[in-house]
Formats: sequence, C-alpha cells, structure tokens
Amino acid sequence: MGFILILNTSCKNNDSSTKKVGYPIAFVADPLPSWNDTEHKKAIVTFVEQVTREGSPNFVPPAERIATFDNDGTLWSEQPMYFQYTFTFDRVKALAPQHPEWKKKQPFKAVLEGDLKTVFAGGGNALNEIIMASNADYTTEEFAQIVKDWLDTAKHPKTGRPYTEMVFQPMLELLAYLRANGFKTYIVSGGGVEFMRPWTERVYGIPPEQVIGTSFRIKFELRNGKPVLVQLPEFNFIDDNEGKPVGINQYIGRRPIAAFGNSDGDLQMFQWTTAGSGASFALIIHHTDAEREWAYDSTSSYGRLDKALDEAQAKGWTVVDMKNDWKIIYPFEKK
Amino acid sequence: MGFILILNTSCKNNDSSTKKVGYPIAFVADPLPSWNDTEHKKAIVTFVEQVTREGSPNFVPPAERIATFDNDGTLWSEQPMYFQYTFTFDRVKALAPQHPEWKKKQPFKAVLEGDLKTVFAGGGNALNEIIMASNADYTTEEFAQIVKDWLDTAKHPKTGRPYTEMVFQPMLELLAYLRANGFKTYIVSGGGVEFMRPWTERVYGIPPEQVIGTSFRIKFELRNGKPVLVQLPEFNFIDDNEGKPVGINQYIGRRPIAAFGNSDGDLQMFQWTTAGSGASFALIIHHTDAEREWAYDSTSSYGRLDKALDEAQAKGWTVVDMKNDWKIIYPFEKK
Repeated sequence: MGFILILNTSCKNNDSSTKKVGYPIAFVADPLPSWNDTEHKKAIVTFVEQVTREGSPNFVPPAERIATFDNDGTLWSEQPMYFQYTFTFDRVKALAPQHPEWKKKQPFKAVLEGDLKTVFAGGGNALNEIIMASNADYTTEEFAQIVKDWLDTAKHPKTGRPYTEMVFQPMLELLAYLRANGFKTYIVSGGGVEFMRPWTERVYGIPPEQVIGTSFRIKFELRNGKPVLVQLPEFNFIDDNEGKPVGINQYIGRRPIAAFGNSDGDLQMFQWTTAGSGASFALIIHHTDAEREWAYDSTSSYGRLDKALDEAQAKGWTVVDMKNDWKIIYPFEKK
Repeated sequence: MGFILILNTSCKNNDSSTKKVGYPIAFVADPLPSWNDTEHKKAIVTFVEQVTREGSPNFVPPAERIATFDNDGTLWSEQPMYFQYTFTFDRVKALAPQHPEWKKKQPFKAVLEGDLKTVFAGGGNALNEIIMASNADYTTEEFAQIVKDWLDTAKHPKTGRPYTEMVFQPMLELLAYLRANGFKTYIVSGGGVEFMRPWTERVYGIPPEQVIGTSFRIKFELRNGKPVLVQLPEFNFIDDNEGKPVGINQYIGRRPIAAFGNSDGDLQMFQWTTAGSGASFALIIHHTDAEREWAYDSTSSYGRLDKALDEAQAKGWTVVDMKNDWKIIYPFEKK
C-alpha cells in the first residue's frame, strides 16, 4: 500500500464559483512494506490516522499514545519452546560442573539429559526450581552479561539463526510506524525483565525503561563497599494474564490505547486497553503459518490462544493471520 | 549567573602567525535564575556541560542521561509533616461517618481528635493501619480522583497555599534545565505512586511513567464486565532506603547518572548512582532556612539527614544550603 499526499487547492470556475481540486504532491513510502494489503493492515493505519489527526474526534495527545506489546509469539517466535527456557536450560548445562548433585536430582537430571518431556511433565514448580537455581544470586550486571554472551553464541534449532534474528519483520515495521506517529512503545511480557532488557533496545528500539516483565526479587547490598543489586531466588512479580494490566499500571500509570499480543495470556491486557473512554486498538497475532513459522492456537502449550480469540470476534479486535497478512516473517528473508 | 557564548575566530598577526580571539555573540538566559551564584550552582552546570558536550571524556549519550529526584523535601516541602500524611488524615475524617467505630478505636480516634502526638507515638504500624483503612479498596481511577479533589481544596497550615504550590522554584528550574539537556527526569520517592501520579506532570513536567514510589498491591478484576484495578490493603513495594536503587532497577533498568535527595532515605540511591563507571552527580538539599522554609537535619522525624551528609563530605557530593543557595523557595515568591 502506498500513500499519496494530496495538495488541496481551489480553482476559479467560469461562473466564478470555486471548486476544490487535488494534486498528488508526494508519494510517501509505505511504512508497513512487509504487510500485505489486507483489511488488517488497513485497520492499523486507520487507527493510527484517527488518533494522530488533530481535530479528529478520536485524537489522542502524544503523551497518551501508549502502545504495549507482548514479546514471545508477538515480537519474536516462541517455538519449539520459549527462547528463555532454552537460555535457562543452557544455564543449567553451563553450571552443571559446579553442581555434581544435579546428575541425580530432578528436574536438573532431565535437563542435562535433554529429556524435555520429563522437565515439562514436572509443571510450573519444576520449571521454577530450574529458573531459580540457574538465574538467581547473580548481580543484575552479571546477569545482563550472561544473557548477552548467550545471545552471541546460541542458535535456534530450526533455522540455525541467532535468537535475536527470529523477530518478526512486520512487527519491527509496526513498532517504527507507531513511534514515528508519536507512540511510546512498551514490551509487556511474561518473560523475565532482566532477560529482555540487555537486547530490546538494539533489536526492537525499545529502551530498558519501556520493558515490563516478570521479575525476581532484588536486594541492594554493599560488597566490599561497592553497591550491587542481587537477584534473589524468589519471584517479585509475574507479568502474565491479570498481571499484565497490573504491571502496566505499576510501570506506566496510564492506560494504553493500543495492545498487541498473541495468546490468552494477553487477554486481560486487551480488556484493560480497550476499556478506556477514547479510541483504542487491540491486535492478536494468530500463528497460522506452518511452513514459514509455526501454526498453533488452542492446543498449544506455548501461546495458547482460545478465550482471547473468542473475545476478539465478539469485540471486533483485529486478528492478524500470519500466513495471509505477512509477506515475510523474519528480517533475514528480505531480498 | 549569565552565560556568554564566545565565537572563536582567528586573526593574522603581523608576523603571519595566527592568534585566537573571542567575540561574545549571544547572551544566553540563565537557566537557573533562582539559584545564587555559588559553587553549588557551578557544580550543577559543570556536570551538565561535561556529560552533554560531544567529545568530552565524560560525554554520556542522551538515552543514558537518567536523573532521579526524591520528592518530599527535595521537590516540595515536607513540614510540618509529609503532605501525604495530611491527605491520609483528611481521608480518615472524610470516611469517619461510615466508620462510627473509629471514634473509639486507635489510631483512628487520635486522628479524628487531631491528636497527632498519639498517632505518631503508634509508630509505623499505626500509620500503616490508617493508610490501609483510608486508601485501600478503591480502584486506581477512583483514588486518582480523590487525590485531585483533595489538592483542589486542601491548604498548607503555615502558608495557606495549595500543597502543589509548596514546590521549590529552584528545583523546577533544575528539572527543566536537565530536560533541556536531554535528561529524562524521574521521581523516586518513598511517597505513594498513586498519590503522586495524578499531579506530577502538571506540577513538575514529570509524566506518570517516570514516577517511582511506594505502592499498594493491585488486583485486576471485572466489575459488571468492566475491568478495574483495585488497591488492596497491603504494600507491594516500599520505595525508600535500599528500596530506591531496587525501584530504579525495576522501573528504569539503567543506573542514573544524577540523583537528588535530601535525607538518609536517599543514601542508597546516591551510592548506586555514583558507583557507575562514567561521570555521575549526587546532590543533597539541606534544609537550612528556618525563616523562609524550615531548618532541620539529623534531629528531624522527616527528612532525617545524618549518614548521607557524612558520606557527602567524604565523597564530594554537592550539598545545597537552601538559605544561601536559593534566591527564592516557592514559585509564589516570584516578583
């Protein structure tokens, strides 16, 4: 889709009345070139034009143009499992020499043997035990470095690409388009905030202070007179489901006017975003492309999409069909 | 203090060497007109010039120019007691008709009788009981409206001014000066975040997403199908002392390069801010003006300043002497 700016001017007619005529004066590059020209792309552009046009009944002042994005499955892929799980399991392997007892102790034994079925059969408690044992007790600065080092070397099992290349090109364009229109773009993710902040600015253009996520409890202490912040083996906040609007309130203190997600974990964020008094927009990324990415919804362990899809239909939220709506999925497909 | 821009140019000498000469080309208005020309004002300006001048060894990119400000005693007065306490006691009075039992029950009885000595003798637990009973169970939107309504009518007992006029004119200038130099200004206060956010943008130019404070636990729920966020009678986070660097990490995820406070409750924020690898700045507002404001430090119940003052001397932090450094205290003194 291209945009043509029309210069309105007026001409004298023979009867000395005037008529308005329009001349195209500039062809503005499509801000969303990786999106096909479907109704969903039009819905995005229409919303942005409405809230940014002064005098429009739906105009929203720039300070209130808050847009919140889920991360896993919305800005990057989340298959065959959340990338942060892979990071965490890799941490267990890296730390195993210091923990000989893990060879015999579940769920660590299963991680070390690559038996993910057993790991996940242990449910949330087993995963939390792994997360706490492998991520806690580091200072925030040490942990950020560990994340960066991992991203520098780890490769996705299907594509062989670094994880930070498994981001969605159409969503990068959408982030930039919103920012160009005065929006402040936030991540609101169930993922760990200390896991995301070291790279979101470089990859998405989203600075650390606009990343909201699940967090460990953090303790300030002086180590040899030097102040440090240490991650404790305890969750401070779970930023998922009902936690998303709570996190949004806690960090931002304003209701977003646009929210983007892909699963039932985003439902309450959509509900909160669209319950304001002015114009609002909710968009679901529906993973429908088994060939270029993955196809899944209500039956998946990751990005389960069921209730939010029903509510989207009832409330007219936009549901993006990745297969039909997106020309390419990842930046590395660009020609 | 005025600033004179010098245009450097060069002249041929008779011996065909060149010499640099400077012509003043513009008189730039003093960005801190309510500050006397003391070493403390110079310290501020020198720091800002160092971190903003490209090529300077202390240059800091704009994205990393984070400045954090305590609120009570740093941006507005905190005597004869924290203004939020007055708000809370006024809430108790407003709610008393719905709570006839408060007439006989401490600490509410003492609040209703104006017996603050008894209230404060009950210590933190008594105050917390009052805060929970009078502030919790509201939705965030209801609470914001209550705060606004209170600010519209409440008057400070000494000056008879609305509380939002009891802000420090020199600090308003400092906030604006930092923002004009690419800083992002944050509040990091022991005060309640839901108490501050309804007015900080209007009064300080600090938007809600840049206000960090003590918070209640918040619950998302649907009331008749409408999503609301409800304040529970339980603290989520205490943003004071060690909590300040923790809150800074949680909300901002970057270390500030400048911090401003007035009490021992800001000590850890100063320590964290000045422990980074680059240039940093810590400034304490010392309340020394018994005539125009209040004079207090280590003996005060509010804004106790003892350890932080010692550490300021040891580490070369800037200590502002309100009496000598500030031409006026409040905006309403402007001629």
